[in-house]
Amino acid sequence: MTLNPADTGFVDHLRAVLPADTLRPAEPRYLEEPRGRYHGQAGVIALPRSTEEVATLLRAAHTARVPVVPYGGGTGLVGGQIMGAAGPAPLVISLERMTALRGIYPQENVIAVEAGMILADVQRAATEAGRLFPLSLAAEGTARIGGTLATNAGGVNVLRYGNARDLCLGLEAVLPTGEIWHGLSRLRKDNTGYDLRNLLIGAEGTLGIITAASLKLSPIPAEQGTAMLTVASPAAAIDLLAMARDQLGETISAFELIHRQGLEFLRETLPDLRLPFAELPDWCVLIDLGLPKGRSPADALAALFETALDAGLCADGVIAQSEAQRQALWSVREHIPEGNRRIGSVSSHDISIPISRIPDFIVEGGKRLAALGDMRINCFGHLGDGNLHYNVFPAQGKDRRAYEHLRDEVKRCVHDLTHEYDGSVSAEHGVGRLKVADLARYGDPVKLAAMRAIKQALDPHGIMNPGAVVPRAD
Amino acid sequence: MTLNPADTGFVDHLRAVLPADTLRPAEPRYLEEPRGRYHGQAGVIALPRSTEEVATLLRAAHTARVPVVPYGGGTGLVGGQIMGAAGPAPLVISLERMTALRGIYPQENVIAVEAGMILADVQRAATEAGRLFPLSLAAEGTARIGGTLATNAGGVNVLRYGNARDLCLGLEAVLPTGEIWHGLSRLRKDNTGYDLRNLLIGAEGTLGIITAASLKLSPIPAEQGTAMLTVASPAAAIDLLAMARDQLGETISAFELIHRQGLEFLRETLPDLRLPFAELPDWCVLIDLGLPKGRSPADALAALFETALDAGLCADGVIAQSEAQRQALWSVREHIPEGNRRIGSVSSHDISIPISRIPDFIVEGGKRLAALGDMRINCFGHLGDGNLHYNVFPAQGKDRRAYEHLRDEVKRCVHDLTHEYDGSVSAEHGVGRLKVADLARYGDPVKLAAMRAIKQALDPHGIMNPGAVVPRAD
Repeated sequence: MTLNPADTGFVDHLRAVLPADTLRPAEPRYLEEPRGRYHGQAGVIALPRSTEEVATLLRAAHTARVPVVPYGGGTGLVGGQIMGAAGPAPLVISLERMTALRGIYPQENVIAVEAGMILADVQRAATEAGRLFPLSLAAEGTARIGGTLATNAGGVNVLRYGNARDLCLGLEAVLPTGEIWHGLSRLRKDNTGYDLRNLLIGAEGTLGIITAASLKLSPIPAEQGTAMLTVASPAAAIDLLAMARDQLGETISAFELIHRQGLEFLRETLPDLRLPFAELPDWCVLIDLGLPKGRSPADALAALFETALDAGLCADGVIAQSEAQRQALWSVREHIPEGNRRIGSVSSHDISIPISRIPDFIVEGGKRLAALGDMRINCFGHLGDGNLHYNVFPAQGKDRRAYEHLRDEVKRCVHDLTHEYDGSVSAEHGVGRLKVADLARYGDPVKLAAMRAIKQALDPHGIMNPGAVVPRAD
Repeated sequence: MTLNPADTGFVDHLRAVLPADTLRPAEPRYLEEPRGRYHGQAGVIALPRSTEEVATLLRAAHTARVPVVPYGGGTGLVGGQIMGAAGPAPLVISLERMTALRGIYPQENVIAVEAGMILADVQRAATEAGRLFPLSLAAEGTARIGGTLATNAGGVNVLRYGNARDLCLGLEAVLPTGEIWHGLSRLRKDNTGYDLRNLLIGAEGTLGIITAASLKLSPIPAEQGTAMLTVASPAAAIDLLAMARDQLGETISAFELIHRQGLEFLRETLPDLRLPFAELPDWCVLIDLGLPKGRSPADALAALFETALDAGLCADGVIAQSEAQRQALWSVREHIPEGNRRIGSVSSHDISIPISRIPDFIVEGGKRLAALGDMRINCFGHLGDGNLHYNVFPAQGKDRRAYEHLRDEVKRCVHDLTHEYDGSVSAEHGVGRLKVADLARYGDPVKLAAMRAIKQALDPHGIMNPGAVVPRAD
């Protein structure tokens, strides 16, 4: 299928059917991404103000067979928002002007927003209505809700509240042919036909553009508490998680594994950050708890700590006794990516593994990487979801440039091992363009064929975000 | 697309490629459904023992263009498991021999089972491992897990734990062309491509046959409690729900609305059943609570009752003080469908409405039905999910046969009103064959076109459960 560039003829046509200020020349900020690994191109940037304008844009692109790149907050880490110079220059559609609150229904625990609303603004609108929108991730001040849905974003509260998919009740979207699907339902139960919502969620803009979403809100937990407990090993951390869930059920909002390496990076690169342990433990976990009225989270965490101590799962721990102490503990966890950035990784991996296989995976991963060279591994993340950020760094004192030739081999090694352990090489960041080859390598061939058939059925000219997510058939 | 019957030639071919006892002549039990409204036909019944045998069956049907009806427990209420005499006789594939436990992983809170396992057996296997499989519905002793997933079943615990879709992590399935998709993942996070899982869930066997599923388990709540509280109106019930969620968060497992009419039916048809109120209230709610260790649910419910009393939301109530009392309160709720059956409805409706619009809906529904004739309405159900079972009965002393001519009009009236209130005419029972015309009438046309395109892409010969779910294009 040959696509045409968004050239002056195409842009002139768009100018004729849309308000003058809808279109802008390509600015660099739409053509870069956070890790600097992709550099994009664009024939034109469109900033529609309404779903109808998005539909006009897609109808024109469908007719002219011009590639379209949907653009949210630009925070994606896998190049899904960047189409490189190899193909025809695309029409980039940014939703940044579509930021309206469509409605908020506290009694129903529902909020409906346009796709361009920034994630932190959704959280804020919910809080003002006395509710919680629990999706929370590092980029929340920039990421837009359409992008978080298109990539099925995760974050720190997935254990309790689920990922973006689990938080979405309905969508309004423009399909690749320019037709508007009005599916902005507030219903919790609706079994009327195929699940188009979940097909668009996680499709990373290859099956259409999400223009609005209705999202689930939750009660704000009456009491919150946080503890950081040292554990002897990942296996002990998993046993502690099971014990915590037995005692505290779904009230555990986060259960994060932290490795000594991450704490050492923090001590090295952010020496002012206060770490809770004078002697750094090999492993520790951060537990966050949100309880209904009537019980103190600090007491509940102290009871858990005592049981865990008796069972030999924990050796030491800090339980926050105030909100400031809670924030201080979370600050350690939240600065780990910054520590990583300052050290500079050889290769980073967003993987998930069946939880009970994680301890063996970590041992085996260390062995295999040691065979490749002298490297440091910072393995941390959302243990409760089986989601590890498994990042590989140069040995102490070495420069990452000395490892450039090893990068592909390291990635292949980690991804092969992940696949052997029934894991996923894309847990929460998506496939984008970075992992299309991985999908072709590790994906189930029947699923890949079904994906291609669905893509062809809904986007017959292949205009939507070409090159992302769907591997070509051999 | 012309389909061919599963005639002797086709059956002879199957006999040549499958073990002799895989095939059986059509027995009546596969051709009837619980409400007796559909009568099916079959060329042959197949009882495969493995996923490979299911694949062999579908490959043969795909090649010969023979229609296929997947059969689970046969408990569906919308005719999804019954193909009538109008078309060619289908191949009916029952999963009843595929009941194996594939694996249980208590540390991961995951169970993997074959699709033919009975729902109650899944619950039992989870309990034996110290975990909860929360999907619970009236037919759980007969329904099979493949059917509950294919129809995205709901039940009484959706408020807390979600519907079948929310409880599924991965699927193994045979697609219409006979290819096996190996997607039996135990991962909580996996963003590698389109969400084929959720496309098959709720597709009611029109896009393939689910052969196995990995399912989420939960901790068993340490303490459970139940209360039945009278409320003045549905609006008061909704306010009480919001208050309960503010106080108790997600620990509320069920919040069921009960109307006086349902209690009167019970008193009339099941006089031995003990009702908790001597004088029947107009409306009451059943609240179920599952708490982590450390707090008594009876105390928590008493505190809620007191606040609700002060706020004028409740007038009276019963809080279970023992497991026996809990069961007695639940028994009232669970016998309501039996009471309905004994009275005999004119028309029953499984609908959902945005929660805050339910009070107006109920008032308006009563008015519109009164204009059609003298009827009794029993409106009850899962208020926390916005899911009402809105069932219409003959006036006291009248026979349902006297209303036969009104049935279609009543259904149309209720469904039109549901649609006006942004609701769904199929909340948890699915579309099947009963509601295909409703889907054509009320469904979003862009979504319907996308459904047809997806169906065509994955099932090019249209063999899978023809006539169910997907309305024909005009």
